[in-house]
Amino acid sequence: MSEHLRVDGARLWQSIMQMAEIGATANGGSHRLTLSDADKTARDLFASWCVDAGLSMEVDELGDMFARRGGHDDTQAPVAMGSHLDTQPFGGRFDGVFGVLAGLEVVRTLNDHGIATTKPLEVVNWTNEEGARFAPSMLASGVYGGVFALDWAQSRRAVDTSATLLDELRRIGYCGALPVHEREFSAFIECHIEQGPILESAGIPVGVVDAAQGFRWYDISLEGFASHTGSTPMTGRRNALLGMAKVALAVDELAREHAPLARGTVGSQVTVGPGSRNVIPGRIDFTVDLRHPAAATLEAMDATLRRACSEAAAEYGLKLSLAQISDTQPVAFDADCVERLERACARLGIAHQRITSGAGHDACYVAKRAPTAMLFAPCKDGISHHESESAEPADLEAVCNVLLHAVLELAGVV
Amino acid sequence: MSEHLRVDGARLWQSIMQMAEIGATANGGSHRLTLSDADKTARDLFASWCVDAGLSMEVDELGDMFARRGGHDDTQAPVAMGSHLDTQPFGGRFDGVFGVLAGLEVVRTLNDHGIATTKPLEVVNWTNEEGARFAPSMLASGVYGGVFALDWAQSRRAVDTSATLLDELRRIGYCGALPVHEREFSAFIECHIEQGPILESAGIPVGVVDAAQGFRWYDISLEGFASHTGSTPMTGRRNALLGMAKVALAVDELAREHAPLARGTVGSQVTVGPGSRNVIPGRIDFTVDLRHPAAATLEAMDATLRRACSEAAAEYGLKLSLAQISDTQPVAFDADCVERLERACARLGIAHQRITSGAGHDACYVAKRAPTAMLFAPCKDGISHHESESAEPADLEAVCNVLLHAVLELAGVV
Repeated sequence: MSEHLRVDGARLWQSIMQMAEIGATANGGSHRLTLSDADKTARDLFASWCVDAGLSMEVDELGDMFARRGGHDDTQAPVAMGSHLDTQPFGGRFDGVFGVLAGLEVVRTLNDHGIATTKPLEVVNWTNEEGARFAPSMLASGVYGGVFALDWAQSRRAVDTSATLLDELRRIGYCGALPVHEREFSAFIECHIEQGPILESAGIPVGVVDAAQGFRWYDISLEGFASHTGSTPMTGRRNALLGMAKVALAVDELAREHAPLARGTVGSQVTVGPGSRNVIPGRIDFTVDLRHPAAATLEAMDATLRRACSEAAAEYGLKLSLAQISDTQPVAFDADCVERLERACARLGIAHQRITSGAGHDACYVAKRAPTAMLFAPCKDGISHHESESAEPADLEAVCNVLLHAVLELAGVV
Repeated sequence: MSEHLRVDGARLWQSIMQMAEIGATANGGSHRLTLSDADKTARDLFASWCVDAGLSMEVDELGDMFARRGGHDDTQAPVAMGSHLDTQPFGGRFDGVFGVLAGLEVVRTLNDHGIATTKPLEVVNWTNEEGARFAPSMLASGVYGGVFALDWAQSRRAVDTSATLLDELRRIGYCGALPVHEREFSAFIECHIEQGPILESAGIPVGVVDAAQGFRWYDISLEGFASHTGSTPMTGRRNALLGMAKVALAVDELAREHAPLARGTVGSQVTVGPGSRNVIPGRIDFTVDLRHPAAATLEAMDATLRRACSEAAAEYGLKLSLAQISDTQPVAFDADCVERLERACARLGIAHQRITSGAGHDACYVAKRAPTAMLFAPCKDGISHHESESAEPADLEAVCNVLLHAVLELAGVV
C-alpha cells in the first residue's frame, strides 16, 4: 500500500516560503544568523508546526531540536531526518531549511495517511550549521559526533556581540536540558540543495550523496606597521594588505593546480586596520578555506598555503600568525543508507546520480555516530550562500519522495 | 630687543603632553576623531588656554576656531599660525597639535615680555584636517580656500554614525556663526612634524617647506558574486577580493616606478562583503591614495591606476566603480614667507633645509587665499599617523622659535 504514497510538494514548498519570511531580505533571501532574534522566531515556528503534527519536542544543551513521532517499538532508536534553520548573512531560502522541512513533510504525509512505523521517527534542527556568527560551522553536530567538546562549543563567541553561544542559547530560550551525546539514531538522512552546478547541468533531480570532501579552515593575521600614506617612502613600508593580497592570489592558484575537485578561498570575513584611507594598512585579519575529497591532496594544499603565508610575510616585513581552526576529514557515507536511497529512486522511477558533496554538512559529523547519507536537489546556477539561491518545487518534491520511501524502509511500516 | 626673545620650550612640550591626555591610547598615542566627544574636550581645553592668554575667540560655521590677539593696527589682517587638533584613529600626539600649540606658545611668549605687534595675530584650529571620520581631509581649510562648497562640506557623513558634519558640529556645540570665507590673513604659517624620515636622517631640526606634493584620492568598489566556498568551482567564480589584490599590488608597483617621490597606497579603510569565511567575497570597497609633486607624473599614475582596475575587473568578471573624490594639486608656498622663515633660521643660528611636504596640510588650501608657508620638525623614524609618533622637545622648541621670529617680522613689532 505504502508504495503509492507521495508527499505533498505544494505544502513542502509553502512551508519553505513561510519560513523564508523570517529574516527576509530585500533581494529575496533570508538573513537568520544562529541564535539571533530571527533564529528564535524560526525555531518557534518550526516547534509550532511540530506540535500541530503531533510530535513531541526535546531540546538539548546546544539548542538542537528533536521532534519525535513515536513508533510501534519505541525501544528502538529513531530514524532521523533533518538539517538546520540558521542561514548565512544575507543567505538563501533553501540551504538547511529544505532538509528540516522535508523531514517534517514526511511526517505530515504519514499522518495524512495514518501510517505508523516500527521505529520512531525524528525531525532534527541542528544549531549553528553555518558558522557565520559563531565559528566553526556544524558546531552542534560536531559536538554530537565527538569532534568538539561541549564546553568549548558553548563558549564560542559571536562575531557581532562577543556573547557566548551559551549566553545566546539562554537569551532566546533554547538552552535545553538534554545531554547532547545521549541521542541515538538508527539512521540519519539529510536532504539539502546541492549548492553546486552538477545536478542542474545534468538535468537530474536527485543526487544520492555518497561522500563529502574534507576541508580546513584557518585564521590568519599579518601585522606590519601603520604609517602615513604620503610621507612614508615606498621602500620603508610594512604594508599588511599587500601580504594578504599575495596570499589570496596564492590560495586561488593552489586550488586551480588541483582542479577540478579542489577549492581554495580567502573568505569574505576580512578586517583591515587601523581603518583610514591615508594610513598604510598596519594589520589584516582574514580567513582561508581549503577543500578536497582526498586527505593527501588536502595535506599538500595545506603545505602550499603555509609556504605562501611565510613568503608574503618575509617579502613585506610582516609578523605572521596562522591558526588552523578546523580540520574536517573527507567522509564516506554509510553504504547501506546510500543503497537504500538509490533503491528508493529506482522504485519511484526518479532519475538520480551519485555525487560527492563539495560543502560540509551536519550529516558529515552525524556519520561518526550513526549510519548516515544525504540527498541533494539541484539549485539554480549552483548558487548558494546568496540571496538569489533558488530551487525548483518539482525537484524538492522528488527528493522528499525519495526521503519518504527510504525512511519507510529504514523504519519499517507496521 | 626682540631678537633675544625665545619661546618657553618646556611650556610648549607640557601643553602638547596635556592635550595628548585627551583620547589617550594604551600605546601612548591619541584617538581624537573629528567632532567626537574627545575632539570637543580638546577644543574646550584649547579655548580655555586662549582665554588665559587674553585672546578673543571666534568660531565659524565649520567649527574652525580663531583665537585673536589684537595688534596696534586692528584694521590690518592678522598674521595667523595654526594647524589642527583632531587626530587619526589611534594616531600620534604631535600631528596637528604641535602647529596649534606652537602658535599659542608664540602668543604666550609675547605676553610674557609685554611685546605688542602692529598687525593682530591669530591662532587657528582647522576642523577635520585628518579626513578619517569625515572624508575628505583638510575639509574646512578646503572650504576656506574655495576648493569645496560650504554646504557640501557640512553634509559630509561620519563613517561611524552616518551623522553629518553639521549634525556633529551642533552636537558638540562648535557650530559658530562666522562665515568661513570672511576671514582674511596677512600671512599663515603652519608648523608640523615632518611625518617622514628626511630631517631626522640629515640631523637637521628645522625644515622650511617650500612646496607640497599633489595627491588624488579614489573610492573604488569591485562587485562580483558571493557564493559557497565549497561547492562553487574555481572556474565559475567572480571573486571581488582577488580583483582588489591585483589592484593593491599594481598601486604599489606604479608608485615604485616613479621612485623616490611617488607614493601609492590602498589605504586601511577596506570593507569586504558579505562577511563570512565560507562565502566567496562578493563585493569589496576600498580606497586608493596617489601622490607626486609633479602634476604630469600624477596624471600618468592616475592613468595606470585606472587601467589596473579595469584589467582586474575584466580578469575576475567584476563590476568596477571608481570615483575620484579629491584632486589636490601640488602647491608652491609663498616665496616671501619661505624667505622670511629662512632668514629667521639664519638669525637664530638654527640649521635648516628646504623640504617638500609628502603629506597634505591645511596650509596647502590656505595658500590659495593668503601668503603661506610651513615649518617642519623631525619626527622619530619618520613615523606618523601611528601611536608611536614621537618628536624631540629641542626640535619643537627650535621650530617654534623660528615661527616666533618670522611672525614678529611679518606682523611688525610696535
